[in-house]
Amino acid sequence: MSTANDSQPTHIDIQAGIDWATPLFDAIGQLSFDGIGFTRAAYGEGEQMAHDLVAKAARDLGLRVEVDAALNLSMTLCGAAGANAPLIVGSHLDAVPRGGNFDGLAGVLAGLACAAAWQNSGRRPPRDIQILAIRAEESAWFGAQHIGSRALLGTLPVAMLDQAHRVDTGRTLCEHMREAGVNIDRLRRAEPLLDLRSIGGYIELHIEQGPLLVERELPLGIVSAIRGNRRCRRATCAGAYGHSGTMPRVLRHDAVFAVADLVVEMDALWREIEEDEGGDLVLTFGQFSTDAATHSVTSVPGHVTFSFDARSHSQEILDRVERELLAKATAIGRRRGAIFEFAPITGDPPIAMDGRLHAQLLEGCHRLSIPAASLASGAGHDAGDFAAAGIPTAMIFVRNDNGSHNPQESMDIGDFAAGVRLLTWFVGSFDSRQS
Amino acid sequence: MSTANDSQPTHIDIQAGIDWATPLFDAIGQLSFDGIGFTRAAYGEGEQMAHDLVAKAARDLGLRVEVDAALNLSMTLCGAAGANAPLIVGSHLDAVPRGGNFDGLAGVLAGLACAAAWQNSGRRPPRDIQILAIRAEESAWFGAQHIGSRALLGTLPVAMLDQAHRVDTGRTLCEHMREAGVNIDRLRRAEPLLDLRSIGGYIELHIEQGPLLVERELPLGIVSAIRGNRRCRRATCAGAYGHSGTMPRVLRHDAVFAVADLVVEMDALWREIEEDEGGDLVLTFGQFSTDAATHSVTSVPGHVTFSFDARSHSQEILDRVERELLAKATAIGRRRGAIFEFAPITGDPPIAMDGRLHAQLLEGCHRLSIPAASLASGAGHDAGDFAAAGIPTAMIFVRNDNGSHNPQESMDIGDFAAGVRLLTWFVGSFDSRQS
Repeated sequence: MSTANDSQPTHIDIQAGIDWATPLFDAIGQLSFDGIGFTRAAYGEGEQMAHDLVAKAARDLGLRVEVDAALNLSMTLCGAAGANAPLIVGSHLDAVPRGGNFDGLAGVLAGLACAAAWQNSGRRPPRDIQILAIRAEESAWFGAQHIGSRALLGTLPVAMLDQAHRVDTGRTLCEHMREAGVNIDRLRRAEPLLDLRSIGGYIELHIEQGPLLVERELPLGIVSAIRGNRRCRRATCAGAYGHSGTMPRVLRHDAVFAVADLVVEMDALWREIEEDEGGDLVLTFGQFSTDAATHSVTSVPGHVTFSFDARSHSQEILDRVERELLAKATAIGRRRGAIFEFAPITGDPPIAMDGRLHAQLLEGCHRLSIPAASLASGAGHDAGDFAAAGIPTAMIFVRNDNGSHNPQESMDIGDFAAGVRLLTWFVGSFDSRQS
Repeated sequence: MSTANDSQPTHIDIQAGIDWATPLFDAIGQLSFDGIGFTRAAYGEGEQMAHDLVAKAARDLGLRVEVDAALNLSMTLCGAAGANAPLIVGSHLDAVPRGGNFDGLAGVLAGLACAAAWQNSGRRPPRDIQILAIRAEESAWFGAQHIGSRALLGTLPVAMLDQAHRVDTGRTLCEHMREAGVNIDRLRRAEPLLDLRSIGGYIELHIEQGPLLVERELPLGIVSAIRGNRRCRRATCAGAYGHSGTMPRVLRHDAVFAVADLVVEMDALWREIEEDEGGDLVLTFGQFSTDAATHSVTSVPGHVTFSFDARSHSQEILDRVERELLAKATAIGRRRGAIFEFAPITGDPPIAMDGRLHAQLLEGCHRLSIPAASLASGAGHDAGDFAAAGIPTAMIFVRNDNGSHNPQESMDIGDFAAGVRLLTWFVGSFDSRQS
């Protein structure tokens, strides 16, 4: 429907938007600094403070500000007359305890900076731009992630309202939501809070939580998919204790040797899948412990507990990794006289970003001369829930040093501005490809 | 000096000695049963009870009963007139908390059964047989092993008296010793409590603490050497934490992968030394733990602590194992981006048993038609301290199932009787070889 040509949006000058929006990083950071890092509790004080500041800024900017039944904050820049279904620019404002200032916040402020740039230009984007500050994305607070987006999409399990407890207060999600002003009865109906068919697309800008962009010296990354996972939070290997000095090699049931064998064999599989086959995979044994109550320096270790986390954007690779894990554990257990148990192995499927939007973002980087690469997201994001709901979804990663969820998150405002430039171009050119 | 011929001692009927001595297993076991296993605290109630019962039995048998300044109990069967320096038959009467009934006790009762057999025969052994019930052999009580034998030999570090604390009471070794009646002033002089030049030899019967004799279906083993060790009680590997889903393979500093590499490489070295080269070695990583305060299922593990214990009767192999451990850790650390620290690596040298006595015991087994094999002792024993003091020393292992230091220790009285037969033969034939 739109007649906007591809190059037109690049003429929007974003600098005014950057200058207007970036002071909000400092303002929100100062009010959520806890002495070590930045804490913004989901459905709690810190998140509400950020919502209040962002809402006020959006009103000052002339956006239409609304709050849904789950308290997700919607700030809409009206598009050209007769515009199509809105394009959502979403992210979250909660932060893990003693976390960083940029995880989540950067995405919301990128949306506001983009809107401010459009406002400053005196022109209208081809569609309504609905900037969403989504509630409770971090699982650190209630042991459940993406609460706000799932409430919005109607996919939040109702039982979670009473079963999830905030880790610091011990009170239920329902209690904290009600205290914050959530319409609980509406959420218990588990219906979408938006007409999903009315959504044109969803885009989320987020700091990269891994080191790839820093390593490759690229300001931006375009997300190809959110990795799925195969996970066992508590696997065990049971052998038999014995005197370390008197138990010979062939008669041992040594749980440390057995689990070390498994770790090294799975690492070799990872190398094979990644280096030889070019497959996408990360493998982590984040926990590995002999039993403090029974182990000793001079005893053959009879018991080990460990965790396992595999992630890939390929369902086929995840299936293969699980199969190989179990087969190797069985073979090693037989050889070492030990018994492995994995109970349960859980998993989330990989979620692909929309192929056309992904290509469009890469093209935008090329047109705007922003160095960028396609990469998979290892962590989950609200974007995954929108994609799973069938909404065309895209993600932009901004270079960030030192990982996320810690006070050392380090995003350069120049890289942020590159992301806003791309987002602003995307907003302007979205229609020409999607309609 | 003796004219005893080799076969003469085999005519000593040991059955009367076995019948007389073995009820003491039950009597001492009943009085030290703690509801789960057998507890006989060093310089404490359980050990003293066992000493009292054994001393009374020895007096009943007509032995000369004495106690030295460290409260080691000496029970002497007088040898033939003009006998040479005594042969000591030693072991200990303390037991670890909730331990077994046979570790230590079997050796003292074997000496008494042997003495009872000689008394019953109406004949005299060629030498004085000095049965020693040695104090405080187990390190479980004061964190220091072989206290009684080292006090007797004058090799107990004086500082230990005030620095070692009993793990259950927190009180010093000195306090517990004084309460039991030890002459502390005498011990502070760190002089032998016996004229060491007057000792003809030392022999100790002990249950095997490993599974080899059970596995090979042999009632007895003749100890060739007590394994030395190389040990690191607390080694560390420091990598770097990161998000498990976003930290790629090549940029990881994964401490679990690094330590697993080391475990598997050292296991391969063990296989090579044992299977390809026929060398004596046991290797144990008894403790292996990520940091419970900072690890998580979804974090690349940044820190691991682990322990290392290598034992061999070959000093050369121990040196090589330590060299290879450090070289491999350096190479793996470089490859994995992690730093290993081993501080400190401690060690005790291997201690060979007297070659002539070892051969004599094997010959005895042959003559008495007792199936036996030569093997190394993986655990330390009082015998090691006597050997280190230059006294010709030998050890007999008796088959025992389920290891030691637990209530499931399982020694068959028939095997014990085989040990007593060998010991009785040895006592009779000792002179013919040593003089």
